[in-house]
Amino acid sequence: MDDILLMLPGPTTVAPRVLEAMSQAVVNHRSAIFGEILTDTSELMSEVFKTQNKSYLITGSGTAVMEAGIAAIANPGEKVLNVVGGKFGERFMKIANSHGIDSKELSVEWGKAVDPKDIKEALDADENIKAITVVHNETSTGVAAPIKEIGKLMKNYDALYVVDTVSSLGGDYVDVDKYGIDVCVTGSQKCLAAPPGMAAITLSDDAWKVVDNVNSNSYYLDMKAYKKSGGKTPPETPYTPSVSLIYALHESLKIIKEEGLDNRVKRHHKAAQATVKAVKALGLELFPDESVSSATVTAVKMPEGITDKEFRGTTRDKYGVELAGGQDHLKGNVFRIGHMGNISYKELAIAFSAIGMTLKDLNLDVDPGAGVSSITESYL
Amino acid sequence: MDDILLMLPGPTTVAPRVLEAMSQAVVNHRSAIFGEILTDTSELMSEVFKTQNKSYLITGSGTAVMEAGIAAIANPGEKVLNVVGGKFGERFMKIANSHGIDSKELSVEWGKAVDPKDIKEALDADENIKAITVVHNETSTGVAAPIKEIGKLMKNYDALYVVDTVSSLGGDYVDVDKYGIDVCVTGSQKCLAAPPGMAAITLSDDAWKVVDNVNSNSYYLDMKAYKKSGGKTPPETPYTPSVSLIYALHESLKIIKEEGLDNRVKRHHKAAQATVKAVKALGLELFPDESVSSATVTAVKMPEGITDKEFRGTTRDKYGVELAGGQDHLKGNVFRIGHMGNISYKELAIAFSAIGMTLKDLNLDVDPGAGVSSITESYL
Repeated sequence: MDDILLMLPGPTTVAPRVLEAMSQAVVNHRSAIFGEILTDTSELMSEVFKTQNKSYLITGSGTAVMEAGIAAIANPGEKVLNVVGGKFGERFMKIANSHGIDSKELSVEWGKAVDPKDIKEALDADENIKAITVVHNETSTGVAAPIKEIGKLMKNYDALYVVDTVSSLGGDYVDVDKYGIDVCVTGSQKCLAAPPGMAAITLSDDAWKVVDNVNSNSYYLDMKAYKKSGGKTPPETPYTPSVSLIYALHESLKIIKEEGLDNRVKRHHKAAQATVKAVKALGLELFPDESVSSATVTAVKMPEGITDKEFRGTTRDKYGVELAGGQDHLKGNVFRIGHMGNISYKELAIAFSAIGMTLKDLNLDVDPGAGVSSITESYL
Repeated sequence: MDDILLMLPGPTTVAPRVLEAMSQAVVNHRSAIFGEILTDTSELMSEVFKTQNKSYLITGSGTAVMEAGIAAIANPGEKVLNVVGGKFGERFMKIANSHGIDSKELSVEWGKAVDPKDIKEALDADENIKAITVVHNETSTGVAAPIKEIGKLMKNYDALYVVDTVSSLGGDYVDVDKYGIDVCVTGSQKCLAAPPGMAAITLSDDAWKVVDNVNSNSYYLDMKAYKKSGGKTPPETPYTPSVSLIYALHESLKIIKEEGLDNRVKRHHKAAQATVKAVKALGLELFPDESVSSATVTAVKMPEGITDKEFRGTTRDKYGVELAGGQDHLKGNVFRIGHMGNISYKELAIAFSAIGMTLKDLNLDVDPGAGVSSITESYL
């Protein structure tokens, strides 16, 4: 298994140091010693979110914490505006619907970023919108949304600003307090480079005020319970957490602190720029608008005449590099290169060597070394 | 941390072999290789549940899977009967309430087991009861419910039979198909002796028929989504699972198969009997009725004049043995000895040595060696 290089938009390759931390003996999750680890991990999470507010850890996937976030702030029948430009924007809407929340869709063409003006227009047209949801990094299309600009706009409205940073936090610029984000959620297995299964959420004071007046129909994902348990001495989670995954996340966050968050984000941006250049050098075409292409995952149009099975099957089975396919209607039409977490020129050199050789294997008229050669130029 | 012996009703001490499996490199959760591990783990789970039905894995705590189970089979407004004789029976009821389900409580005194006749009476009195929930092993009181006898009774009713075996599966007799259990849920960190954070659920054909007519307001915990993804080739989970925790659970289940499920259950029963004898040898008193005392956790009345802090603080800080306290109104009045998972005379010898010395330290008039001496007699 170790031989496959994961170039996915999560899960990402986990550092041996993190795997080692994870395999420490399990302790009582309601003990002082675990309370310290929980406190430390939560504080390190808040540093990465760039917020003065407390962060809460939930055992589950990014989807679990998206649900916790939206169910916390809207009662059934209340209105939220969901910006939908890909699979995860859609998921936010589906979650809202499953809770009986009145979801209003702001549809964005897949591959484009939402225009903040359209959000403004929607909010101006309906004063009953209680919150908006935005996916910062739409993993399915490789598009980054302008969350900073949207944040500026949101300061003029009472509606809460809910942002999914599952596949961006730690890899792209996120500043919860400065951008005025009220509910921010993320997952462990993307840019934080911990194993999957742990999720984190932070809420602003404005959001907590709303939570108090919402009757959540979630139990496991009820933020009121997390707040109550997190306020105990020592702090706890309401239900047994994955102690091992918290060890792992804790170690990952220490690594991020050692690297420096800003350095880490810059490293991701550099990898994204190098990837886009290498894609073009191979004569391939980006799926999203280049100006909004993500810092952590690059979506590429599948070359004409090649199937997903041939392409990704070859990179994986022959060259040991696992790329991601397209999702939903992009299945077969797009492949995606994840460059998140522990990403350097090394992984990109391997990935683009594999992509180049695969295209040649599949009889495309390409210079198989053009991509990887471009990577070396970018990193010189 | 390694120095503390966990004698908790979960999490339990995890075998080095399981920790090692957990720390293998993370693979793509939507790959054939992971599909194989998922299939194998799910099949091994069904063997432990003793069911021909498929088992599903959910990243989360036992509470998460209790919620998945109950939300799957009842619409808001529909009626379920919750047997409540402790904290976890109560939790089932609270979860039902949070989903707007019309919960009818069958209250049982804490420390007693439910009488199947009372269930029969409740079902006869109200034909609208769509399901009943029973906690097999009420961790908070150390009581085992007669799930086999209740199963016999339930065969005469259409209502679904939902059983929480979170702290019993792998340590006490559970036979999903023979007992006619329709929804059975469990957690990884109890008798299965894997780290916390993974939960499992299995549903009967009768239950699945009901699921199709229920509009769950859970998204992350919607069983329809798990069924759909689990039916893919290769099988998947709907949302990113904790790959590492599935490695760990997989290894734990292999260990259970090697030991033999029946041997394992007998080993737990033996530990429970030895524990009860040793408790009495120290002049302490059981909290529950002895005839229904659990196979996996023994609840003991706190001796007069000793606080929980003194008692459990000493066993932990001075002697390195972590016991559990009482929950809710039993806080301070009860302590609990978990004997689940990798339990043998060794752990009990250490635990009862620590308990004996602690009682002496706290100036109780006891023979500090009486408990551990009783353990050796039980295991001779």
